[in-house]
Amino acid sequence: MAKKGNLYIIVVGCGRLGSKIAGNLSNKGHSVVIVDKHEASFEHLSQEFTGFTIVGNATEIESLKKAKIDKADMVLAFTNNDNINYMVSQVAKEVYKTLHVIARIYNPDNVELFKQINVKVIIPMILAESFFNQTFEEITEEEA
Amino acid sequence: MAKKGNLYIIVVGCGRLGSKIAGNLSNKGHSVVIVDKHEASFEHLSQEFTGFTIVGNATEIESLKKAKIDKADMVLAFTNNDNINYMVSQVAKEVYKTLHVIARIYNPDNVELFKQINVKVIIPMILAESFFNQTFEEITEEEA
Repeated sequence: MAKKGNLYIIVVGCGRLGSKIAGNLSNKGHSVVIVDKHEASFEHLSQEFTGFTIVGNATEIESLKKAKIDKADMVLAFTNNDNINYMVSQVAKEVYKTLHVIARIYNPDNVELFKQINVKVIIPMILAESFFNQTFEEITEEEA
Repeated sequence: MAKKGNLYIIVVGCGRLGSKIAGNLSNKGHSVVIVDKHEASFEHLSQEFTGFTIVGNATEIESLKKAKIDKADMVLAFTNNDNINYMVSQVAKEVYKTLHVIARIYNPDNVELFKQINVKVIIPMILAESFFNQTFEEITEEEA
């Protein structure tokens, strides 16, 4: 991996978050491959995205091999299913020793599982809760 | 509305976020009513929640009337559907002049619509994107 240079990044899941981040990373000059089981999902990708798309089921290791997971500096497990994200994270971390794995998690109860295998997590539900608390405090302080 | 006191808050949508926040607010001493069209959704509520539950379709004004929307200091439109959240926000803001309305939005393209009617928004997708960018920068700086 070239320091300060381009990273080779695999994004699994081309939903709203995956497609947006794949576009951003591509735009920053990183090499990005995005995997989704539905070809139609790639319609979410913006013009910023200059990487490759792979149609495949990320729970089948063949799809990850096609994406050259053995060469990846970073894997983002961003499907809308915590179990699939966990399987992808586990394959990346434990089989391919991918240096950086980040997963999106729906159910905060699953966090510990991911942390045990040294995966960084994004939990939109917790972020939304904190943001709400902050907004609520601002509102109630204004009126106090 | 009693300053620094309890608020009367209606939460529409008892999914993961709605139920969590309803519990937190209830725990802080606010009077909370939560509305969901599926009774089973109330199983998400924790023991912290001491408010009322109403089974009803929030797009039917009767459900909001049952929740006493005319007395609400705050309405949280937290269903998993932007259109329903918009309808609820609009009824609260424009018909009942609810002081504070906060909506959760899935599609960032819808933000302007909500802002036009003076509704505060929570966009988990944007929060997740910012959080990712921050994590990504930390990772790449560490290695630089």
